[in-house]
Amino acid sequence: MPPKGNLYIISAPSGAGKTSLVRALMERMDGLAFSVSHTTRPPRPGEVDGRDYHFVDHAAFEAMIEEGAFLEYARVFDNYYGTARASVEAELVAGRDVFLDIDWQGARQVRGVWPEAAGIFVLPPSREALEARLRGRGQDSDEVIARRMRDAVSESAHYNEYDYLIINEDFDTAVAELGAIVQAGRLRLARQEAAHAGRIAALLASEG
Amino acid sequence: MPPKGNLYIISAPSGAGKTSLVRALMERMDGLAFSVSHTTRPPRPGEVDGRDYHFVDHAAFEAMIEEGAFLEYARVFDNYYGTARASVEAELVAGRDVFLDIDWQGARQVRGVWPEAAGIFVLPPSREALEARLRGRGQDSDEVIARRMRDAVSESAHYNEYDYLIINEDFDTAVAELGAIVQAGRLRLARQEAAHAGRIAALLASEG
Repeated sequence: MPPKGNLYIISAPSGAGKTSLVRALMERMDGLAFSVSHTTRPPRPGEVDGRDYHFVDHAAFEAMIEEGAFLEYARVFDNYYGTARASVEAELVAGRDVFLDIDWQGARQVRGVWPEAAGIFVLPPSREALEARLRGRGQDSDEVIARRMRDAVSESAHYNEYDYLIINEDFDTAVAELGAIVQAGRLRLARQEAAHAGRIAALLASEG
Repeated sequence: MPPKGNLYIISAPSGAGKTSLVRALMERMDGLAFSVSHTTRPPRPGEVDGRDYHFVDHAAFEAMIEEGAFLEYARVFDNYYGTARASVEAELVAGRDVFLDIDWQGARQVRGVWPEAAGIFVLPPSREALEARLRGRGQDSDEVIARRMRDAVSESAHYNEYDYLIINEDFDTAVAELGAIVQAGRLRLARQEAAHAGRIAALLASEG
Protein backbone atom coordinates (compact mmCIF):
# COMPACT_ATOMS: atom_id res chain seq x y z
CA MET A 1 0.00 0.00 0.00
CA PRO A 2 1.47 3.36 -0.92
CA PRO A 3 1.21 6.08 1.72
CA LYS A 4 -2.03 8.05 1.51
CA GLY A 5 -1.88 11.23 -0.56
CA ASN A 6 -2.47 14.78 0.61
CA LEU A 7 -5.50 16.87 -0.31
CA TYR A 8 -4.97 20.42 -1.57
CA ILE A 9 -7.65 23.00 -2.17
CA ILE A 10 -6.48 25.36 -4.91
CA SER A 11 -8.34 28.55 -5.67
CA ALA A 12 -7.67 31.63 -7.72
CA PRO A 13 -9.46 34.35 -9.63
CA SER A 14 -9.86 33.76 -13.36
CA GLY A 15 -6.73 35.03 -15.05
CA ALA A 16 -4.32 33.93 -12.31
CA GLY A 17 -3.16 30.88 -14.28
CA LYS A 18 -4.08 28.27 -11.66
CA THR A 19 -5.10 25.48 -14.05
CA SER A 20 -1.99 25.94 -16.19
CA LEU A 21 0.20 25.82 -13.09
CA VAL A 22 -1.30 22.58 -11.84
CA ARG A 23 -1.16 20.95 -15.28
CA ALA A 24 2.48 22.00 -15.68
CA LEU A 25 3.34 20.52 -12.28
CA MET A 26 1.54 17.30 -13.19
CA GLU A 27 3.87 17.00 -16.20
CA ARG A 28 6.94 17.34 -13.97
CA MET A 29 5.88 15.33 -10.94
CA ASP A 30 4.27 11.90 -10.55
CA GLY A 31 1.49 11.03 -8.18
CA LEU A 32 -0.71 14.10 -8.67
CA ALA A 33 -4.36 14.24 -9.70
CA PHE A 34 -7.06 16.82 -10.25
CA SER A 35 -10.24 15.88 -8.47
CA VAL A 36 -13.01 15.17 -10.99
CA SER A 37 -16.21 16.92 -9.97
CA HIS A 38 -19.78 15.82 -10.52
CA THR A 39 -22.11 18.08 -12.50
CA THR A 40 -25.60 18.13 -13.92
CA ARG A 41 -24.69 20.36 -16.85
CA PRO A 42 -24.44 18.65 -20.19
CA PRO A 43 -20.99 17.82 -21.57
CA ARG A 44 -19.49 20.31 -24.02
CA PRO A 45 -17.92 19.10 -27.28
CA GLY A 46 -14.72 17.22 -26.50
CA GLU A 47 -15.47 16.68 -22.81
CA VAL A 48 -15.21 13.10 -21.56
CA ASP A 49 -17.27 11.64 -18.72
CA GLY A 50 -14.96 10.71 -15.88
CA ARG A 51 -12.15 12.92 -17.09
CA ASP A 52 -13.54 16.46 -17.25
CA TYR A 53 -16.52 15.79 -14.97
CA HIS A 54 -18.75 12.96 -13.82
CA PHE A 55 -21.90 13.93 -15.76
CA VAL A 56 -25.06 12.95 -13.86
CA ASP A 57 -28.71 13.99 -13.97
CA HIS A 58 -30.42 16.19 -11.38
CA ALA A 59 -32.10 13.26 -9.63
CA ALA A 60 -28.81 11.45 -9.16
CA PHE A 61 -27.04 14.60 -7.93
CA GLU A 62 -29.82 15.37 -5.47
CA ALA A 63 -29.76 11.79 -4.20
CA MET A 64 -26.03 12.15 -3.61
CA ILE A 65 -26.64 15.39 -1.71
CA GLU A 66 -29.15 13.53 0.46
CA GLU A 67 -26.61 10.79 1.17
CA GLY A 68 -23.99 13.37 2.19
CA ALA A 69 -21.79 12.22 -0.67
CA PHE A 70 -20.30 15.65 -1.35
CA LEU A 71 -17.43 17.40 0.37
CA GLU A 72 -18.83 20.55 -1.24
CA TYR A 73 -21.39 21.44 -3.86
CA ALA A 74 -23.04 24.49 -5.29
CA ARG A 75 -25.79 25.46 -7.65
CA VAL A 76 -24.67 27.76 -10.44
CA PHE A 77 -27.67 29.08 -12.39
CA ASP A 78 -29.50 25.88 -13.47
CA ASN A 79 -26.86 23.30 -12.68
CA TYR A 80 -25.16 21.64 -9.75
CA TYR A 81 -21.40 21.16 -9.34
CA GLY A 82 -19.82 19.19 -6.52
CA THR A 83 -16.84 17.20 -5.22
CA ALA A 84 -17.72 13.68 -4.14
CA ARG A 85 -15.84 12.40 -1.12
CA ALA A 86 -15.53 8.93 -2.66
CA SER A 87 -13.78 10.31 -5.76
CA VAL A 88 -11.22 12.13 -3.66
CA GLU A 89 -10.64 9.24 -1.29
CA ALA A 90 -10.03 6.79 -4.12
CA GLU A 91 -7.18 8.94 -5.43
CA LEU A 92 -5.69 9.54 -1.98
CA VAL A 93 -5.73 5.85 -1.06
CA ALA A 94 -3.97 5.14 -4.35
CA GLY A 95 -1.19 7.39 -3.03
CA ARG A 96 -1.86 10.44 -5.18
CA ASP A 97 -1.89 14.02 -3.95
CA VAL A 98 -5.17 15.55 -5.08
CA PHE A 99 -5.98 19.11 -6.12
CA LEU A 100 -9.52 20.35 -5.58
CA ASP A 101 -9.97 23.19 -8.04
CA ILE A 102 -12.79 25.06 -6.30
CA ASP A 103 -13.72 28.62 -5.34
CA TRP A 104 -13.57 30.19 -1.89
CA GLN A 105 -17.11 29.14 -1.05
CA GLY A 106 -16.39 25.51 -1.91
CA ALA A 107 -13.16 25.80 0.05
CA ARG A 108 -15.06 26.82 3.18
CA GLN A 109 -17.33 23.81 2.83
CA VAL A 110 -14.42 21.42 2.39
CA ARG A 111 -12.52 22.82 5.39
CA GLY A 112 -15.58 22.15 7.51
CA VAL A 113 -15.52 18.42 6.72
CA TRP A 114 -11.81 17.89 5.87
CA PRO A 115 -9.75 20.16 8.15
CA GLU A 116 -6.43 18.57 7.09
CA ALA A 117 -6.84 19.82 3.52
CA ALA A 118 -4.24 22.51 2.85
CA GLY A 119 -5.38 25.55 0.89
CA ILE A 120 -3.32 27.20 -1.83
CA PHE A 121 -4.38 30.53 -3.35
CA VAL A 122 -2.89 31.82 -6.59
CA LEU A 123 -2.87 35.53 -7.35
CA PRO A 124 -1.82 37.41 -10.45
CA PRO A 125 1.06 39.86 -9.88
CA SER A 126 -0.96 43.02 -10.65
CA ARG A 127 -4.26 44.40 -11.94
CA GLU A 128 -2.57 45.09 -15.26
CA ALA A 129 -1.45 41.49 -15.65
CA LEU A 130 -4.89 40.30 -14.56
CA GLU A 131 -6.65 42.50 -17.08
CA ALA A 132 -4.32 41.46 -19.88
CA ARG A 133 -4.98 37.78 -19.14
CA LEU A 134 -8.77 38.31 -18.87
CA ARG A 135 -8.83 40.31 -22.07
CA GLY A 136 -7.36 37.33 -23.90
CA ARG A 137 -7.67 37.84 -27.63
CA GLY A 138 -9.44 41.16 -27.14
CA GLN A 139 -12.78 39.99 -28.53
CA ASP A 140 -14.86 40.95 -25.50
CA SER A 141 -16.46 44.29 -24.79
CA ASP A 142 -15.12 46.64 -22.15
CA GLU A 143 -18.19 45.92 -20.01
CA VAL A 144 -17.51 42.17 -20.08
CA ILE A 145 -13.86 42.75 -19.18
CA ALA A 146 -14.85 45.15 -16.39
CA ARG A 147 -17.25 42.56 -14.97
CA ARG A 148 -14.61 39.84 -15.11
CA MET A 149 -12.16 42.16 -13.36
CA ARG A 150 -14.68 42.89 -10.60
CA ASP A 151 -15.37 39.17 -10.14
CA ALA A 152 -11.64 38.41 -10.10
CA VAL A 153 -10.91 41.10 -7.52
CA SER A 154 -13.83 39.90 -5.44
CA GLU A 155 -12.56 36.29 -5.50
CA SER A 156 -9.01 37.52 -4.75
CA ALA A 157 -10.12 39.12 -1.50
CA HIS A 158 -10.49 35.61 -0.03
CA TYR A 159 -6.77 34.78 -0.38
CA ASN A 160 -6.38 35.20 3.36
CA GLU A 161 -8.52 32.14 4.09
CA TYR A 162 -5.81 29.88 2.67
CA ASP A 163 -2.61 28.35 4.04
CA TYR A 164 -0.28 29.17 1.13
CA LEU A 165 -0.14 32.04 -1.35
CA ILE A 166 1.55 31.90 -4.74
CA ILE A 167 1.95 35.08 -6.80
CA ASN A 168 2.02 33.90 -10.41
CA GLU A 169 4.41 36.42 -11.90
CA ASP A 170 7.02 34.18 -13.53
CA PHE A 171 5.31 30.97 -14.61
CA ASP A 172 8.22 28.58 -14.07
CA THR A 173 8.88 30.05 -10.63
CA ALA A 174 5.24 29.63 -9.67
CA VAL A 175 5.25 25.99 -10.85
CA ALA A 176 8.37 25.36 -8.76
CA GLU A 177 6.69 26.99 -5.76
CA LEU A 178 3.61 24.81 -6.16
CA GLY A 179 5.96 21.82 -6.44
CA ALA A 180 7.74 22.78 -3.21
CA ILE A 181 4.44 22.87 -1.33
CA VAL A 182 3.50 19.41 -2.63
CA GLN A 183 6.98 17.99 -1.99
CA ALA A 184 7.08 19.37 1.55
CA GLY A 185 3.66 17.80 2.15
CA ARG A 186 5.14 14.41 1.22
CA LEU A 187 7.89 14.86 3.81
CA ARG A 188 5.52 15.29 6.74
CA LEU A 189 6.03 12.78 9.52
CA ALA A 190 2.92 10.62 9.12
CA ARG A 191 3.37 10.17 5.37
CA GLN A 192 7.09 9.46 5.66
CA GLU A 193 6.49 7.00 8.50
CA ALA A 194 4.05 5.14 6.27
CA ALA A 195 6.37 5.29 3.26
CA HIS A 196 9.45 4.08 5.15
CA ALA A 197 7.97 1.97 7.96
CA GLY A 198 10.13 -1.06 7.21
CA ARG A 199 13.44 0.73 7.06
CA ILE A 200 12.66 2.83 10.13
CA ALA A 201 11.87 -0.33 12.08
CA ALA A 202 15.10 -1.94 10.85
CA LEU A 203 17.08 1.12 11.88
CA LEU A 204 15.60 1.23 15.37
CA ALA A 205 15.56 -2.52 16.08
CA SER A 206 17.53 -3.48 19.17
CA GLU A 207 20.64 -5.51 18.59
CA GLY A 208 20.12 -9.26 19.29
CA MET B 1 11.65 45.42 6.28
CA PRO B 2 11.91 41.95 4.85
CA PRO B 3 9.31 39.46 6.04
CA LYS B 4 10.32 37.62 9.20
CA GLY B 5 12.11 34.31 8.68
CA ASN B 6 10.98 30.88 9.81
CA LEU B 7 12.62 28.87 12.59
CA TYR B 8 13.50 25.22 11.96
CA ILE B 9 14.72 22.75 14.53
CA ILE B 10 16.88 20.17 12.79
CA SER B 11 18.00 17.02 14.55
CA ALA B 12 19.61 13.78 13.55
CA PRO B 13 21.83 11.05 14.91
CA SER B 14 25.54 11.39 14.20
CA GLY B 15 26.18 9.86 10.80
CA ALA B 16 22.93 11.01 9.21
CA GLY B 17 24.62 13.87 7.34
CA LYS B 18 22.53 16.70 8.78
CA THR B 19 25.25 19.36 8.89
CA SER B 20 26.38 18.60 5.34
CA LEU B 21 22.77 18.81 4.11
CA VAL B 22 22.17 22.21 5.68
CA ARG B 23 25.51 23.59 4.47
CA ALA B 24 24.79 22.34 0.94
CA LEU B 25 21.37 24.00 1.00
CA MET B 26 22.92 27.23 2.23
CA GLU B 27 25.14 27.22 -0.87
CA ARG B 28 22.11 26.88 -3.16
CA MET B 29 19.62 29.14 -1.41
CA ASP B 30 19.87 32.66 0.01
CA GLY B 31 18.44 33.83 3.28
CA LEU B 32 19.39 30.84 5.44
CA ALA B 33 21.41 30.81 8.65
CA PHE B 34 22.60 28.34 11.25
CA SER B 35 21.86 29.56 14.75
CA VAL B 36 25.10 30.21 16.62
CA SER B 37 24.95 28.70 20.09
CA HIS B 38 26.57 29.93 23.28
CA THR B 39 29.00 27.64 25.07
CA THR B 40 31.38 27.66 28.02
CA ARG B 41 33.78 25.18 26.45
CA PRO B 42 37.03 26.62 25.17
CA PRO B 43 37.37 27.19 21.43
CA ARG B 44 39.15 24.47 19.45
CA PRO B 45 41.89 25.34 16.95
CA GLY B 46 40.31 27.13 13.98
CA GLU B 47 37.05 27.98 15.71
CA VAL B 48 35.98 31.62 15.59
CA ASP B 49 33.95 33.38 18.28
CA GLY B 50 30.60 34.41 16.81
CA ARG B 51 30.83 31.97 13.91
CA ASP B 52 31.20 28.52 15.46
CA TYR B 53 29.90 29.49 18.89
CA HIS B 54 29.59 32.49 21.19
CA PHE B 55 32.31 31.53 23.68
CA VAL B 56 31.45 32.78 27.20
CA ASP B 57 32.55 31.91 30.72
CA HIS B 58 30.45 29.99 33.26
CA ALA B 59 29.41 33.12 35.16
CA ALA B 60 28.12 34.79 32.02
CA PHE B 61 26.27 31.65 30.88
CA GLU B 62 24.67 31.20 34.29
CA ALA B 63 23.63 34.84 34.36
CA MET B 64 21.97 34.36 30.97
CA ILE B 65 20.14 31.29 32.33
CA GLU B 66 18.90 33.40 35.23
CA GLU B 67 17.63 36.07 32.82
CA GLY B 68 15.75 33.46 30.76
CA ALA B 69 17.92 34.29 27.77
CA PHE B 70 17.96 30.76 26.38
CA LEU B 71 15.39 28.99 24.23
CA GLU B 72 17.16 25.82 25.32
CA TYR B 73 20.36 24.86 27.10
CA ALA B 74 22.05 21.79 28.46
CA ARG B 75 25.03 20.80 30.50
CA VAL B 76 27.25 18.27 28.75
CA PHE B 77 29.91 16.96 31.15
CA ASP B 78 31.64 20.14 32.39
CA ASN B 79 30.28 22.65 29.93
CA TYR B 80 27.08 24.44 29.03
CA TYR B 81 25.62 24.77 25.52
CA GLY B 82 22.56 26.85 24.68
CA THR B 83 20.57 28.78 22.08
CA ALA B 84 19.97 32.41 22.98
CA ARG B 85 16.60 33.81 21.96
CA ALA B 86 18.20 37.13 21.00
CA SER B 87 20.57 35.46 18.52
CA VAL B 88 17.73 33.66 16.81
CA GLU B 89 15.43 36.69 16.72
CA ALA B 90 18.10 38.90 15.18
CA GLU B 91 18.41 36.53 12.23
CA LEU B 92 14.65 36.08 11.81
CA VAL B 93 13.97 39.83 11.88
CA ALA B 94 16.66 40.22 9.21
CA GLY B 95 14.48 37.94 7.07
CA ARG B 96 16.56 34.79 7.30
CA ASP B 97 15.22 31.30 7.91
CA VAL B 98 17.16 29.86 10.84
CA PHE B 99 18.22 26.28 11.54
CA LEU B 100 18.65 25.25 15.18
CA ASP B 101 21.01 22.27 15.10
CA ILE B 102 20.05 20.68 18.42
CA ASP B 103 19.23 17.24 19.81
CA TRP B 104 15.81 15.89 20.74
CA GLN B 105 16.07 17.18 24.31
CA GLY B 106 16.87 20.72 23.15
CA ALA B 107 14.04 20.39 20.61
CA ARG B 108 11.55 19.66 23.40
CA GLN B 109 12.68 22.76 25.28
CA VAL B 110 12.38 24.96 22.19
CA ARG B 111 8.89 23.67 21.32
CA GLY B 112 7.78 24.64 24.81
CA VAL B 113 8.71 28.29 24.27
CA TRP B 114 8.48 28.56 20.44
CA PRO B 115 5.61 26.39 19.28
CA GLU B 116 5.73 27.72 15.71
CA ALA B 117 9.20 26.26 15.15
CA ALA B 118 8.96 23.42 12.65
CA GLY B 119 11.01 20.32 13.40
CA ILE B 120 12.94 18.37 10.77
CA PHE B 121 14.54 15.01 11.57
CA VAL B 122 17.15 13.43 9.32
CA LEU B 123 17.67 9.67 9.33
CA PRO B 124 20.25 7.54 7.58
CA PRO B 125 18.77 5.00 5.15
CA SER B 126 19.91 1.90 7.08
CA ARG B 127 22.01 0.61 9.96
CA GLU B 128 24.66 -0.41 7.46
CA ALA B 129 24.92 3.11 6.03
CA LEU B 130 24.91 4.56 9.54
CA GLU B 131 27.71 2.27 10.69
CA ALA B 132 29.79 2.99 7.59
CA ARG B 133 29.46 6.75 8.19
CA LEU B 134 30.25 6.43 11.91
CA ARG B 135 33.22 4.21 11.21
CA GLY B 136 34.74 6.99 9.09
CA ARG B 137 38.39 6.25 8.39
CA GLY B 138 38.27 3.02 10.39
CA GLN B 139 40.59 4.24 13.14
CA ASP B 140 38.26 3.60 16.06
CA SER B 141 37.85 0.39 18.01
CA ASP B 142 34.80 -1.82 17.62
CA GLU B 143 33.68 -0.82 21.14
CA VAL B 144 33.75 2.87 20.21
CA ILE B 145 31.81 2.20 17.02
CA ALA B 146 29.29 0.05 18.90
CA ARG B 147 28.74 2.86 21.42
CA ARG B 148 28.26 5.43 18.67
CA MET B 149 25.76 3.11 16.98
CA ARG B 150 23.78 2.70 20.21
CA ASP B 151 23.75 6.49 20.75
CA ALA B 152 22.68 7.06 17.15
CA VAL B 153 19.88 4.51 17.36
CA SER B 154 18.78 6.00 20.66
CA GLU B 155 18.66 9.54 19.17
CA SER B 156 16.86 8.18 16.07
CA ALA B 157 14.00 6.85 18.18
CA HIS B 158 12.87 10.48 18.70
CA TYR B 159 12.19 11.09 15.00
CA ASN B 160 8.45 10.90 15.71
CA GLU B 161 8.53 14.12 17.76
CA TYR B 162 9.21 16.14 14.60
CA ASP B 163 7.08 17.59 11.83
CA TYR B 164 9.13 16.47 8.82
CA LEU B 165 11.32 13.44 8.19
CA ILE B 166 14.10 13.26 5.59
CA ILE B 167 15.80 9.93 4.85
CA ASN B 168 19.29 10.87 3.67
CA GLU B 169 19.90 8.12 1.14
CA ASP B 170 20.83 10.12 -1.97
CA PHE B 171 22.52 13.34 -0.85
CA ASP B 172 21.28 15.60 -3.65
CA THR B 173 17.73 14.32 -3.21
CA ALA B 174 17.88 15.00 0.52
CA VAL B 175 19.18 18.54 -0.08
CA ALA B 176 16.32 19.16 -2.50
CA GLU B 177 13.85 17.82 0.07
CA LEU B 178 15.23 20.14 2.74
CA GLY B 179 14.97 22.98 0.22
CA ALA B 180 11.33 22.13 -0.51
CA ILE B 181 10.47 22.34 3.20
CA VAL B 182 12.14 25.75 3.49
CA GLN B 183 10.60 27.04 0.26
CA ALA B 184 7.13 25.89 1.24
CA GLY B 185 7.61 27.66 4.57
CA ARG B 186 8.25 30.91 2.67
CA LEU B 187 4.96 30.51 0.80
CA ARG B 188 2.82 30.38 3.93
CA LEU B 189 0.14 33.04 4.06
CA ALA B 190 1.53 35.32 6.78
CA ARG B 191 4.99 35.51 5.25
CA GLN B 192 3.69 36.05 1.73
CA GLU B 193 1.27 38.72 2.94
CA ALA B 194 4.20 40.54 4.53
CA ALA B 195 6.41 40.07 1.46
CA HIS B 196 3.77 41.26 -1.04
CA ALA B 197 1.63 43.60 1.03
CA GLY B 198 1.88 46.46 -1.46
CA ARG B 199 0.97 44.51 -4.55
CA ILE B 200 -1.85 42.66 -2.79
CA ALA B 201 -3.32 45.98 -1.69
CA ALA B 202 -2.99 47.34 -5.23
CA LEU B 203 -4.69 44.25 -6.64
CA LEU B 204 -7.63 44.45 -4.23
CA ALA B 205 -8.10 48.23 -4.23
CA SER B 206 -11.57 49.31 -5.29
CA GLU B 207 -11.77 51.10 -8.58
CA GLY B 208 -12.09 54.88 -8.11
